[in-house]
Amino acid sequence: MRLAVVPGDGIGPEVVNEALKVLSEVAPQIEPTQYDLGAARWHSTGELLPESVLTELREHDAILLGAVGDPSVPSGILERGLLLRLRFELDHHVNLRPARLYPGVRGPLSAQPEVDLVVVREGTEGPYAGTGGLLRKDTPQEIATEVSVNTAFGVERVVRDAFARASNRPRRHLTLVHKTNVLTHAGSLWSRVVEEVSLEHPEVAVDYQHVDSTTIHLVTDPSRYDVIVTDNLFGDILTDLAAAVTGGIGLAASGNLDVSRANPSMFEPVHGSAPDIAGKGIADPTAAVLSVALLLDHLGEPELARRVEAAVAFDLATRDHQNPGGTSAVGDRLAALVSS
Amino acid sequence: MRLAVVPGDGIGPEVVNEALKVLSEVAPQIEPTQYDLGAARWHSTGELLPESVLTELREHDAILLGAVGDPSVPSGILERGLLLRLRFELDHHVNLRPARLYPGVRGPLSAQPEVDLVVVREGTEGPYAGTGGLLRKDTPQEIATEVSVNTAFGVERVVRDAFARASNRPRRHLTLVHKTNVLTHAGSLWSRVVEEVSLEHPEVAVDYQHVDSTTIHLVTDPSRYDVIVTDNLFGDILTDLAAAVTGGIGLAASGNLDVSRANPSMFEPVHGSAPDIAGKGIADPTAAVLSVALLLDHLGEPELARRVEAAVAFDLATRDHQNPGGTSAVGDRLAALVSS
Ligand SMILES: CC(C)[C@H](C(=O)O)[C@@H](O)C(=O)O
Ligand SMILES: CC(C)[C@H](C(=O)O)[C@@H](O)C(=O)O
Repeated sequence: MRLAVVPGDGIGPEVVNEALKVLSEVAPQIEPTQYDLGAARWHSTGELLPESVLTELREHDAILLGAVGDPSVPSGILERGLLLRLRFELDHHVNLRPARLYPGVRGPLSAQPEVDLVVVREGTEGPYAGTGGLLRKDTPQEIATEVSVNTAFGVERVVRDAFARASNRPRRHLTLVHKTNVLTHAGSLWSRVVEEVSLEHPEVAVDYQHVDSTTIHLVTDPSRYDVIVTDNLFGDILTDLAAAVTGGIGLAASGNLDVSRANPSMFEPVHGSAPDIAGKGIADPTAAVLSVALLLDHLGEPELARRVEAAVAFDLATRDHQNPGGTSAVGDRLAALVSS
Repeated sequence: MRLAVVPGDGIGPEVVNEALKVLSEVAPQIEPTQYDLGAARWHSTGELLPESVLTELREHDAILLGAVGDPSVPSGILERGLLLRLRFELDHHVNLRPARLYPGVRGPLSAQPEVDLVVVREGTEGPYAGTGGLLRKDTPQEIATEVSVNTAFGVERVVRDAFARASNRPRRHLTLVHKTNVLTHAGSLWSRVVEEVSLEHPEVAVDYQHVDSTTIHLVTDPSRYDVIVTDNLFGDILTDLAAAVTGGIGLAASGNLDVSRANPSMFEPVHGSAPDIAGKGIADPTAAVLSVALLLDHLGEPELARRVEAAVAFDLATRDHQNPGGTSAVGDRLAALVSS
């Protein structure tokens, strides 16, 4: 098994280091190879994702990514040129983002609800397609457009994946989140596809909710959600909120999956490069470690994945949350737990 | 002063009734005229917003709207054909949505932070432009698009309004919320306009934040926000979340403003028609009453507006939140308070 590792920028290398520590304990057969991509490479060579690197990445079984982004690089360059390019080139159509409130973790809500949901976010189209433009730039008549592109092909495959996941979970509940009352064209396609696929899954209870109202329920009654399926942009927004509700993006893992397995899937913490705390050794590596659990699941090692999750659950239940220890201390604890 | 009243659907007429009770106490000179628009009219006549009604509405100084929407009407019909049509035809480019945590109100957050922010949401373009479409509908090759249209004209006028508001508030702080790292075209226009207008307002401190990360901070540290300026869709999402954080959409007011005053502005609670509780006399009319305060502000009656807000603040500080009383009981209390 070959794992490509892209530590990236800011705290990326720090948290990836700990994730690999845990991985090498639990699955020493996986061989990591590091790839140097991100702000530093762009500054020194102008390269974001050279074709040769992309070709090499494709030859791996999976990718582990730390974080991408730096204030020294204009907004959008690394995001569109590296992170989103990877997601699009490698056809990561299922962006899987679980949110769970672990025992011992106090979220920001005064009710400490039981939260165990997963957002299945479309990852290769929607408003992320990048097909907008600027007309008459820098004139009073300037127009900027962004085109959300939604295809039956793209929507159907992610909706199918979401139903399959819902079907395998105890509650068997799926919520489509969109804004069908305003984005009537895309909304119509998403609704019809969900309706069609639901016929093949009579065991899954289906719900619809507008994205605005979903943000309300995520803070007043998050327990109601089991599987949420939604588009690329709504998924981006809702998963940050769901992460906040379950203790913060320091704990939120994600998988960018090509469920057809034609390309390697990519696993990354939901948090960014956090330049303000980079280099201080204080970033929480838990999200990166939980991303390793998703990776193990994807590689067909569910028992190892559960072991990593159990280690995290134990550590979160017992750690001193005021004083969790530094990045490597947390990594050491988790590595010890998985091998015990 | 002539006020057009569109009670609308569901709880709309119930809450509007109470809002008018309060209004007639505080500003008896304002003459309300009711207009019957919404689900019932559509069902019986097929009409959404006849030209003749639109023409009459234009002849008023302001509009008070209850809520629009009913499960018996396919999603999008009333929203696009009536509510959004009003906002677009009457050029309501500033959608003003304050969010304040009133003393006595317990929001869902365990920290009870001080929240006093206002979202200045663009109201006439962006992803709400309605300029998408369906191609090859009902085939495996179907494509649905939604085009976000952002013009220098449209962005500049709302950004100017937001800066003016920030300048008049004690904290003088403005946050642009967008997703510039992904929606690079629209993001570039919004960023440049904010930068340009900020030169005219050196007294206002300016910040930028991505929309996903804003949802996090709205639940972990909402006190940081003063004025948020953002596009139509992000504004829709963030104002529901901000309302939830400050006690729910039962308390959230909004103004759809044509700040050029060429057309009447429209005031409405952020909540919808809530068909599940319609007709029961239990809907909280507070959001509708607070919308009346925004209306009075807009009509140049800030003292009356403050009186309405003070009545609401007093009632919220003293009411039994488990048992606030029914719709008309709350309205009676507020009407008595403003006239005392
Ligand atoms: C960095 C950015 C491009 C990215 C996204 O918008 O998808 C991030 O917010 C995420 O959620 O992984
Ligand atoms: C009903 C709907 C069209 C509307 C919107 O999206 O603007 C509502 O959610 C709001 O926020 O006023």
